[in-house]
Amino acid sequence: MPPSTLRGNAAIGQSGGPTAVINQSLVGAILALKKFASVKSILGMRHGVTGLTKSPPALVDLGKLSATRLEAIARTPSAALGSSRDKPDAPACARIVEACRTSHIRYFFYIGGNDSSDTCRIVSEVAARSGYEMRCFHIPKTVDNDLMHSDHTPGFGSAARFVATAFLADNFDNASLPGVKINVVMGRHAGFLTAAGALARFSGAKGKPLADAGPHLIYLPEVPFDTDRFIADVQQVYDRIGRCQVAVSEGIQTAEGKAVAETLIEGLDRDAHGNVQLSGVGGLGDALADLVKKRVRNKDGKAPRVRADTFGYLQRCWPDPSPVDAREARAAAAFAVSLAKAGHASGSVALVRTSDKPYKCKYKRVELADVAAKTRHLPHEFIAGHNDVTPALVKYLRPLVGNLPEFAGLQPFVR
Amino acid sequence: MPPSTLRGNAAIGQSGGPTAVINQSLVGAILALKKFASVKSILGMRHGVTGLTKSPPALVDLGKLSATRLEAIARTPSAALGSSRDKPDAPACARIVEACRTSHIRYFFYIGGNDSSDTCRIVSEVAARSGYEMRCFHIPKTVDNDLMHSDHTPGFGSAARFVATAFLADNFDNASLPGVKINVVMGRHAGFLTAAGALARFSGAKGKPLADAGPHLIYLPEVPFDTDRFIADVQQVYDRIGRCQVAVSEGIQTAEGKAVAETLIEGLDRDAHGNVQLSGVGGLGDALADLVKKRVRNKDGKAPRVRADTFGYLQRCWPDPSPVDAREARAAAAFAVSLAKAGHASGSVALVRTSDKPYKCKYKRVELADVAAKTRHLPHEFIAGHNDVTPALVKYLRPLVGNLPEFAGLQPFVR
Repeated sequence: MPPSTLRGNAAIGQSGGPTAVINQSLVGAILALKKFASVKSILGMRHGVTGLTKSPPALVDLGKLSATRLEAIARTPSAALGSSRDKPDAPACARIVEACRTSHIRYFFYIGGNDSSDTCRIVSEVAARSGYEMRCFHIPKTVDNDLMHSDHTPGFGSAARFVATAFLADNFDNASLPGVKINVVMGRHAGFLTAAGALARFSGAKGKPLADAGPHLIYLPEVPFDTDRFIADVQQVYDRIGRCQVAVSEGIQTAEGKAVAETLIEGLDRDAHGNVQLSGVGGLGDALADLVKKRVRNKDGKAPRVRADTFGYLQRCWPDPSPVDAREARAAAAFAVSLAKAGHASGSVALVRTSDKPYKCKYKRVELADVAAKTRHLPHEFIAGHNDVTPALVKYLRPLVGNLPEFAGLQPFVR
Repeated sequence: MPPSTLRGNAAIGQSGGPTAVINQSLVGAILALKKFASVKSILGMRHGVTGLTKSPPALVDLGKLSATRLEAIARTPSAALGSSRDKPDAPACARIVEACRTSHIRYFFYIGGNDSSDTCRIVSEVAARSGYEMRCFHIPKTVDNDLMHSDHTPGFGSAARFVATAFLADNFDNASLPGVKINVVMGRHAGFLTAAGALARFSGAKGKPLADAGPHLIYLPEVPFDTDRFIADVQQVYDRIGRCQVAVSEGIQTAEGKAVAETLIEGLDRDAHGNVQLSGVGGLGDALADLVKKRVRNKDGKAPRVRADTFGYLQRCWPDPSPVDAREARAAAAFAVSLAKAGHASGSVALVRTSDKPYKCKYKRVELADVAAKTRHLPHEFIAGHNDVTPALVKYLRPLVGNLPEFAGLQPFVR
């Protein structure tokens, strides 16, 4: 394929939930575009395509930021351009393409998850139908790790690092004041982030197993959740070690495919994509804690101490990114620019793991339609029974998350 | 006072909610006791005084742990010995003193907050009344920062560091997808931890102010909370900048002194000290978010995007301690041992700030009764109006929390 000779401006947008490293992708795209001779101005969309529907279009100049400023932005969590959850309808799409035309945007880069890649695909198709030549690329980003064709997604490793660190620290806290502790983790349809709690069973760079460490039970959206079985599971762990740390995905579903959160909490919000709002509410954890209080019993026949935490938005913005994740978020964006340079009309970027020891990853182009609005689930080989994950999952996660702190308890106790 | 010649064993206990640095105090006490010639064995109480009420007493030998192991324990959050929230009644106190007598414990060290210092005082008095000579010392620890006579308490700086970092990162997240974000912070009666959110208005080692940074509203337990005023406050900030980040203490109270959480949520647990369980439930944040959804309006007359997070137990166990806090937690314990060595019969340790630039702190002995079961509140000079804190508070907090990450957004935007 001949290198692209299409001349014009490039625009970058950020969409969906922010992550700790989505600005690495923004900066990676800016730095790569600076070296792309066909690109005149590097523009940023304020709040994704929503900014392009405004009059005048909400575009900002990204080309004059100093290297120091760019590095500071790169390490800042959140979407520096502003993000959007709007799903553009037909009139909005027409306005978006019109805005691109009037702003001479010939290269369109959209950083986001599967909903965002769908938006990118639609914009690409509307531009083509209206006879405006514009190259559209999706740069992957999601803490959910649920994009098709990728080994993993930028943003996931850092969120998984927060979750694993949280379970690790909270496990020691729970051992101090033993009881049942339920931690609710993000991930609407895919259990990767909840499963990352399993890393907390190991400590330090060498991944030394910790005795009796939680999470002792892991409930994923991929496995139907049954209340009676949940109570029996908690009772069993509690009987054995006098406490129980539970990892629960916010997206756990009943066998009928209904969100457990929805069966327990009234008045949940829905976004423009029709998704129920599961993050930013503590209800699921509290409801499960109430069940445990009512039905689990200690040896005196009393309810155990029960607490629930919902890790919430800190999962996607905590400023201690996984080093591998930060690096890959930047590299994936640079690869998208290389696709534009190489003359591709559109595409998304997939991350492919080529080696485990040492960990290596390469990038490849996939069609927008193969990623758009599709969800990858936790593979079967990573799921153990109805309440756990496999050692293969831990092996898969470790390089993505990086080293966790090395902790020690006093056990075994000596008198 | 002549140095202590009372010979016997020493016992250390940990009590109340764990912190990220309570094991620094444990290790500080162990290391100091190793150099105290009158002390034969260094014992640890399993789950505080509760362990001493068991038959046989749940005591473990702490004297043989290697230096490497001790350092690993010191950096591990949680109470390595196990903690306790039990308040011993008269028969339990008798059993505790009897256990100390049979185990030849002459030096009793208890690491905890104001409830724990009260336990220490009671044990000291029961021992004295029963004619058993035992020296009892309280080593301060609480994320609430609410002990009398101390400038601040070990454990607080690290929890405040988590809270400030969380507000800092979450503020950028909220600016990405603008809306109302309510973050509920620990602190039953004292607003120090909630107030620490104010550090998030500054970035980096030099404390550079961030434009329009949250928290925009801070609600403390020391200031009566009024629902109508809260809604008006949120509406005003939202009208001005199109979003609003709110810091709310879990312990906010009505003008009648009733916990707002209690007026909104049914079935809350109470501990042995009669305190309502406020942490480990998401209800307060969700209830406030519901109020905002019902009553705050954007310029189209619609409810804004509203989310609530309850930071929960991660505040007290997140493994990124403030360096000053880690050092002082260890030093405060060593000072308690020095009081024993010097021949004092009992006492608690207070931290006194002697200089701000450079930050310096010294330790002094206070009577157990002057700390026991008393609560220090946020001083008036740290409170601004009904929804903010003063610059003096930020100055007070900064050395205790340490440097926060340096972040940058894209503002001001340039076209």
